Amino acid sequence: MSKKVQKAINPTRSEDYPEWYQQVVKASDLAERSAVRGCMVIKPWGYSIWENIVREMDDMFKDTGVQNAYFPLFIPISFLEKEARHVEGFAKECAVVTHHRLEKDDQGGLVPAGKLAEPLVVRPTSETIIGDSFSRWVKSYRDLPLLINQWANVVRWEMRTRIFLRTSEFLWQEGHTVHATEAEAVERTRQMLDVYVRCVEDFLAIPVIKGRKSASERFPGAVDTLCIEAMMQDRKALQAGTSHFLGQNFARASEIKFQTTDETEAYAWTTSWGTSTRLIGGVIMTHGDDDGIILPPKVASSHAVILPIIRKPEDRQTVMAYVDSLVLRLREQNYHGRKIKIEVDDRDIGGARGWEWIKKGIPLRVEVGPRDIAENSVFVARRDKRHRDKTSMPVDSFVETFTDILDGIQANLFDRALAFREAHTHKIEDNKSFYDYFTPENSDKPEIHGGFAVSPWCGDENCETTIKEDLKVTIRCIPFDSEVTDAKCVCCGKPRSRSVIFSKAY
Amino acid sequence: MSKKVQKAINPTRSEDYPEWYQQVVKASDLAERSAVRGCMVIKPWGYSIWENIVREMDDMFKDTGVQNAYFPLFIPISFLEKEARHVEGFAKECAVVTHHRLEKDDQGGLVPAGKLAEPLVVRPTSETIIGDSFSRWVKSYRDLPLLINQWANVVRWEMRTRIFLRTSEFLWQEGHTVHATEAEAVERTRQMLDVYVRCVEDFLAIPVIKGRKSASERFPGAVDTLCIEAMMQDRKALQAGTSHFLGQNFARASEIKFQTTDETEAYAWTTSWGTSTRLIGGVIMTHGDDDGIILPPKVASSHAVILPIIRKPEDRQTVMAYVDSLVLRLREQNYHGRKIKIEVDDRDIGGARGWEWIKKGIPLRVEVGPRDIAENSVFVARRDKRHRDKTSMPVDSFVETFTDILDGIQANLFDRALAFREAHTHKIEDNKSFYDYFTPENSDKPEIHGGFAVSPWCGDENCETTIKEDLKVTIRCIPFDSEVTDAKCVCCGKPRSRSVIFSKAY
Repeated sequence: MSKKVQKAINPTRSEDYPEWYQQVVKASDLAERSAVRGCMVIKPWGYSIWENIVREMDDMFKDTGVQNAYFPLFIPISFLEKEARHVEGFAKECAVVTHHRLEKDDQGGLVPAGKLAEPLVVRPTSETIIGDSFSRWVKSYRDLPLLINQWANVVRWEMRTRIFLRTSEFLWQEGHTVHATEAEAVERTRQMLDVYVRCVEDFLAIPVIKGRKSASERFPGAVDTLCIEAMMQDRKALQAGTSHFLGQNFARASEIKFQTTDETEAYAWTTSWGTSTRLIGGVIMTHGDDDGIILPPKVASSHAVILPIIRKPEDRQTVMAYVDSLVLRLREQNYHGRKIKIEVDDRDIGGARGWEWIKKGIPLRVEVGPRDIAENSVFVARRDKRHRDKTSMPVDSFVETFTDILDGIQANLFDRALAFREAHTHKIEDNKSFYDYFTPENSDKPEIHGGFAVSPWCGDENCETTIKEDLKVTIRCIPFDSEVTDAKCVCCGKPRSRSVIFSKAY
Repeated sequence: MSKKVQKAINPTRSEDYPEWYQQVVKASDLAERSAVRGCMVIKPWGYSIWENIVREMDDMFKDTGVQNAYFPLFIPISFLEKEARHVEGFAKECAVVTHHRLEKDDQGGLVPAGKLAEPLVVRPTSETIIGDSFSRWVKSYRDLPLLINQWANVVRWEMRTRIFLRTSEFLWQEGHTVHATEAEAVERTRQMLDVYVRCVEDFLAIPVIKGRKSASERFPGAVDTLCIEAMMQDRKALQAGTSHFLGQNFARASEIKFQTTDETEAYAWTTSWGTSTRLIGGVIMTHGDDDGIILPPKVASSHAVILPIIRKPEDRQTVMAYVDSLVLRLREQNYHGRKIKIEVDDRDIGGARGWEWIKKGIPLRVEVGPRDIAENSVFVARRDKRHRDKTSMPVDSFVETFTDILDGIQANLFDRALAFREAHTHKIEDNKSFYDYFTPENSDKPEIHGGFAVSPWCGDENCETTIKEDLKVTIRCIPFDSEVTDAKCVCCGKPRSRSVIFSKAY
């Protein structure tokens, strides 16, 4: 019965998921590749999503007592070397500054000159350079806890890049805290993970699973890495935020010592935690459909676009006056503490106009023409519904229920994503089913298969490696509530295992 | 009669102005030098000033239709080379990335590896890399004007650095706009300068003079550079913001072309404009005194500190309850759209406590002890007044007039700075007086002498150079209202000159 509906994004998700992603980024005007290998340009429509995330998260950080500061972009190589696993983790992918000016060569071209005595690394993360400052700032237990966050760009030289998900330069925040006791640092690690959960679930409408990383997936130098993991629509996992308990490792590396209440000297306990522009990739892959992105209203660049319907030039004045008054009434309101943002698009470009906004994922499209005005109504389309499900509403009730409609979209997006994740999360206890589950050949869509397997793992790194090498599947996290049971390890069959989340991942 | 009062900053401004500056930065806990040559660490108390400037300015930009975006940190050398004067201007002071990983050498030390085919420069400014994107974004007159701003870090390798004023890395914003006509671009250049004037004068309480730069002081590649100049307390000028009309120079360099309304193809007209963390240096040097910085309330990290006076342990509960209720009442209010921020400092460290807040420049200090509570009053000290001028006020009227008191401080700081500038601005028309005015030997304070000379200049670059070489004095700006008159050039004596502002400068 159903005929094939033309979709705005070509290919569709089921035809070619990775290419669908690239085309959505382009069609939605979020970002583009730059002339510099691996670096992206974040365009205004995409950057405003980041601005909204920053504001939301920054307020949440500050509510827990965190203060912002700023540390140097460059890190001396000798600093990286202070923590052995840390330098191992980052040496292979860092931008190295070796000179401090350019000079003309014999052919008149510019070449690096002014060689630095010690090369500098563009920060891939700032533990070591911040540690250097902290070693001066922390002297006594009275200076603790020290709770600092930095909003910054970082660089990790990537060979295969994908906009928002894996780029050589990205924007992020990195929190760094110092504590007098292990217990307090452990608690802070968990507290900040919970901040991420709230932000990602309530604000980005992305449901996440909380847990800790296995040893092999830990941040280089960390004692414990907590994480939140989300499922994308190709059923792969996206790590949406991490919070690291660093023990005394970085305090020893950077000499962060303090005088205790009983006047002895002790190394401090530190944490670090970060999220990045990769979250925007998560929004695209969680909520997007075959017509483009769908922006959750709380983080959307704008909440609605008004599309005046002007078929005859003599209608223009009446329609635009009606539109202006509607915009004013909507803008008087707030939406979860943010000003309502409304676009008006009166370009005369036919159907392309509506499609542009669909592809950009604006939550609401509102058509207003002479007939609507005669009836004192508006014609409303929700981006999370089918395009033809437009509703005529009395203008007053539209204005009055505007933020409720937005809340409805926000809730629907979350519920849909949660249902999707639950539909593709399976308890799998035997080895054969596990291997079958993750074998692409078992699906007609090579990029969309598998999902989250909740499976027993004995804790042996060899089992992890075997599964990773065989299937490209990794342990995404060990959920906090996972307990050791008699279940047998899905790899080696040993009992005394605990349930963990296995998945392919970004 | 007056005995010497001990000051918190050693040396005082008149004893050694440059050293006073360094000591104030340190004592106020705003920032510190880092282990990386020329790079600063902005500490929380200093960073929150920047956050306040960013929020204020960002709102002002957006009100004029500007949108934020983000462009790559790295610029290929070939991009810089596209505009001849531009590369000349920046080649001597840029950080060059030549490798993308680190490797162990024979001795086990880490050395740069993975040499890049084309070295990358860490952006000193983004005209060329943004121009590359704009050449794709701009196709038709319908895409114009394009109004983009970026908040970012930039790097200009400096040999002699001073925190906030001249550092190898600093934070800034750079606006970049594209227009269909010259007139519109010229108007935008001026419009953004006016935004800077409003922000610097109304928000930072720093009076400025508006004008344009002489050809030799222009931004590399610009047709016209507009600027605002402020006088610091050593009577030197600080450039507080610049706005450049770039003509079609960068449009030609980056191929930013558009189809006009009459369907021909034309190069666009562009502008760029920027301000930076250097503004914080301006706040310090405009308002600071021999006890530290004085923060204008609108940009202050916090508005007031409450200092509980607890001489007997049994008083603690009563005093702290009174303090808590006072804080709640104050925090209910807003101050120019920002939440009121109040610190409470109940440390038992004697007189050092008050002095710490004086050095940090908090606008108001409020003492509350058992006697004040008995009288239902508070003891208030304004940072812009003498320390002993404390006023006892009924607590209710203090709460009610709180924002008025802050406004009074804000206005007083501006008026004081304006009076200072006027006292040290002189119309000087003859060569000898001009040379006398700028000769350090004529002052008993070698770093504090001269000021702004409003003097006639014939327009010849040779005269500019002579004065610069003889006196280290430059033309800070040609005020917009300056007219050609019969006055004779202060250097060569030729008539047909116009009045310009000469000064030593940061």
